[in-house]
Amino acid sequence: MHQTDFEIPGFSDDLREAIQHKLDNKAKPVGSLGRLEFLAKQVALIQNSLTPQLNNPVMLTVAADHGITAEGVSPCPVEITWQQVHNFLSGGGGIGLLSRVYGMDLHVVDAGVNYDFQAHPKLIDAKVAKGSRNFLQEPAMSDEECMQAFNNGRSIVASFHEKGSNIIGFGEMGIGNTTPASALMSIICKLPVSDCVGPGAGLDNEGVLNKCRVIEQAIEKHGISSSVLQNLARFGGFEIATIAGGMFEAATRRMVILVDGFITTAGLLVAQELNRKVLDYCVFAHVSDEQGHQKMLAYMQANPLLSFGLRLGEGTGAALAYPMIKGAVAVLSEMTSFEEAQVINTSHIRFEEKGELQSS
Amino acid sequence: MHQTDFEIPGFSDDLREAIQHKLDNKAKPVGSLGRLEFLAKQVALIQNSLTPQLNNPVMLTVAADHGITAEGVSPCPVEITWQQVHNFLSGGGGIGLLSRVYGMDLHVVDAGVNYDFQAHPKLIDAKVAKGSRNFLQEPAMSDEECMQAFNNGRSIVASFHEKGSNIIGFGEMGIGNTTPASALMSIICKLPVSDCVGPGAGLDNEGVLNKCRVIEQAIEKHGISSSVLQNLARFGGFEIATIAGGMFEAATRRMVILVDGFITTAGLLVAQELNRKVLDYCVFAHVSDEQGHQKMLAYMQANPLLSFGLRLGEGTGAALAYPMIKGAVAVLSEMTSFEEAQVINTSHIRFEEKGELQSS
Repeated sequence: MHQTDFEIPGFSDDLREAIQHKLDNKAKPVGSLGRLEFLAKQVALIQNSLTPQLNNPVMLTVAADHGITAEGVSPCPVEITWQQVHNFLSGGGGIGLLSRVYGMDLHVVDAGVNYDFQAHPKLIDAKVAKGSRNFLQEPAMSDEECMQAFNNGRSIVASFHEKGSNIIGFGEMGIGNTTPASALMSIICKLPVSDCVGPGAGLDNEGVLNKCRVIEQAIEKHGISSSVLQNLARFGGFEIATIAGGMFEAATRRMVILVDGFITTAGLLVAQELNRKVLDYCVFAHVSDEQGHQKMLAYMQANPLLSFGLRLGEGTGAALAYPMIKGAVAVLSEMTSFEEAQVINTSHIRFEEKGELQSS
Repeated sequence: MHQTDFEIPGFSDDLREAIQHKLDNKAKPVGSLGRLEFLAKQVALIQNSLTPQLNNPVMLTVAADHGITAEGVSPCPVEITWQQVHNFLSGGGGIGLLSRVYGMDLHVVDAGVNYDFQAHPKLIDAKVAKGSRNFLQEPAMSDEECMQAFNNGRSIVASFHEKGSNIIGFGEMGIGNTTPASALMSIICKLPVSDCVGPGAGLDNEGVLNKCRVIEQAIEKHGISSSVLQNLARFGGFEIATIAGGMFEAATRRMVILVDGFITTAGLLVAQELNRKVLDYCVFAHVSDEQGHQKMLAYMQANPLLSFGLRLGEGTGAALAYPMIKGAVAVLSEMTSFEEAQVINTSHIRFEEKGELQSS
């Protein structure tokens, strides 16, 4: 498989100190904005700037169908994939709604949906095929198809960056896509398949056991490659490959990446196998209710912002996190310093680590 | 002490069912928006409506000074209280910033600051005195002063409600105010003082022990009354009393109450002693880094939205939660149903409780 260029820029240590100094001189007790200050630092390092700004926030919801649904791995009819694409394009569904509420520019990518869409200004045609193949029988994608989907993600993100966007959320839609996500997770995190599967959109326990067996048999059949992109081709899906490429490209271009739930995090698992530095560019929006998600996040030592019991995908959790990043960036770029505020400077008062309290 | 009318309306069980039915028919797996759906239900019940809306969101940051600072309970100079009031009024500080970022209408209340402010369109003059008294020596407020501050909170909130606001966040500013908050917490939650004190704006461990002793001695001196309002007068502060009254009034008027950190939650502790139903109207924004806050929340069986290690107060955590409530309300009021979205209805698929997975 053809390996493209996987360089991602690192962060400046000098800037890190300057950011901390600037935060400590804001008119508030040192460190008292907690997580917001960490977020502010991260975005400043990503943008290599003491006055970070969020421009043209994009939500990219990537859709595809999955041949593995023939094995009964989802309780939902496959037509829902294309129906939801239509719904999102009309501003409906969870992500149509939340993108609008939070002011993100939603685009839906057809990475491999089994439907012929008419052109729409918010629909990006990046269809590689009308769905992946049933990977219990044969690889989900050929290596070429997989690289095409990965590179489509790269060029889509590149084009948003060139139009001025510096923050991008990733979401997905694809009936059956928790199955490829679980398979990739099991392979990359080296965890038993049973640790990686869950009910998805609402499988019962028997359904979950079936899903587990399907994945185990498929891995047995095709084997595990030493190349993550080859594993992506065997067990992945078009939206996962496109997301992996998109996230990768975003990091090379110093964009902030908003990571949503189980499926998009599986895309990231792939990307970070190519270069771990992609993780420095990621804000983990939430830990979902799908059991494997927590373990995926732990594997990457990620600390998600929210624990809201979400299990919808589409990018909804990522959208929810966007206003918090906006607030964090404003703290660093706009909040008054002690001097500007004419408030007595207390930045010499440092918060001690919590000790045991012993009262008289 | 004069007791005013403490009636708070209850919620409709019929509406509860109708809300659930409406949520279950949104174009998404049942329950898949987790916490957002719970928030949506709460706001709908508060407004007694299937199509809740948030109108004229107000942030009320209530400021006061504290005579107890004479006992060295804060590492910060007391002048910071009035200086920060100026700063907030100019759009500075944490809450000036975050109110602007999230579109909340910030008003600062002078409930008892030791400073003569000039009139300002965003400053509400509700000064009862130029700070509470040193409650190690004498009660912080007279019973009359305390009721005046409480009733000021009621009338301020009533006036915002009459101008069309149906959601209000509470924040505070007052050097030394973690001490009265800890004292009230210890009395109301019946916890040892050492469980209720923390470093506030950055006390060292010795300072925390001193704060603990000051509170213990004050409680020993004045004793604990069976009336929560009398305890508020003995050990509280003007901003806490004004916040308690304001929250109370908000609940009587079916407004959504955004609860911030340690001090505002102490105000709520007082209000819920008068009528527990006030809690139904509260959205708990976050659990702060001040150790007592977690125990206060546990006492009220509150489940905060965020755990961000905030310890600034001012209303900053409450402001951060506002966009999430906005999203939640939009889910119920605006998100497309299966029918509207022309997506196959899957509302019969119910999510099972997580069982143990047994894989072959």
